Amino acid sequence: MPPLQGVLEASLYVDDLERSARFYQEVFGFAVIHSGDRLRAVRVTDRQVLLLFKKGASADHDGEGRLHLAFAIVPEALQAWERWLPEHGVVIESRKAWPRGGHSIYFRDPDQHLLELVTPGCWSIY
Amino acid sequence: MPPLQGVLEASLYVDDLERSARFYQEVFGFAVIHSGDRLRAVRVTDRQVLLLFKKGASADHDGEGRLHLAFAIVPEALQAWERWLPEHGVVIESRKAWPRGGHSIYFRDPDQHLLELVTPGCWSIY
Repeated sequence: MPPLQGVLEASLYVDDLERSARFYQEVFGFAVIHSGDRLRAVRVTDRQVLLLFKKGASADHDGEGRLHLAFAIVPEALQAWERWLPEHGVVIESRKAWPRGGHSIYFRDPDQHLLELVTPGCWSIY
Repeated sequence: MPPLQGVLEASLYVDDLERSARFYQEVFGFAVIHSGDRLRAVRVTDRQVLLLFKKGASADHDGEGRLHLAFAIVPEALQAWERWLPEHGVVIESRKAWPRGGHSIYFRDPDQHLLELVTPGCWSIY
């Protein structure tokens, strides 16, 4: 099987590109690296991009609903995120402790997409 | 701002969990690491998981449409993927050469989600 390096782009479909780009920049620090009429691309890491597409604006793909996306954090950062999110107007909707020792916190973006921050000890591989 | 390591989980919403898990295993080699009534989780890398949710089966999130997801590949693997995909019943829908030198190929999964394999030279950061 040919090699593959990992997920480069994950996509969310949003009502308001400006509002979403502002949210991901202010809450996560993701810088905008592309700005167009139907798409904002924001940098998650040097190897990962989050694509914010305007709903209904792309010919060959589109999405509806409240999608789910999870970001990895180190255990030492969990308390800081627990403080940071409410300080930036984000309500923590729920928390989960995983049998393998990991912890997750869940909250919403402006389109009600379900975001998660998770520490190692969730999956067998992480 | 608290640190964040990157995208751990991206999600797709599918009609048939078995069919989708088989597709991602056979075409990409992603091993199933969790199997339940509403979710198959497959390993993309040691740090990334793709979640295949059954449409309409989760209470707090759900998705409709043909979503977009891109995987990074090295340039040397492009030709092998161009051969591998048709050999495994996958039709390459389109190709794109990026101004920065990267190349993308686009194709569909069983739910018509738009998948992309992309070599470096697409974004400013990759």
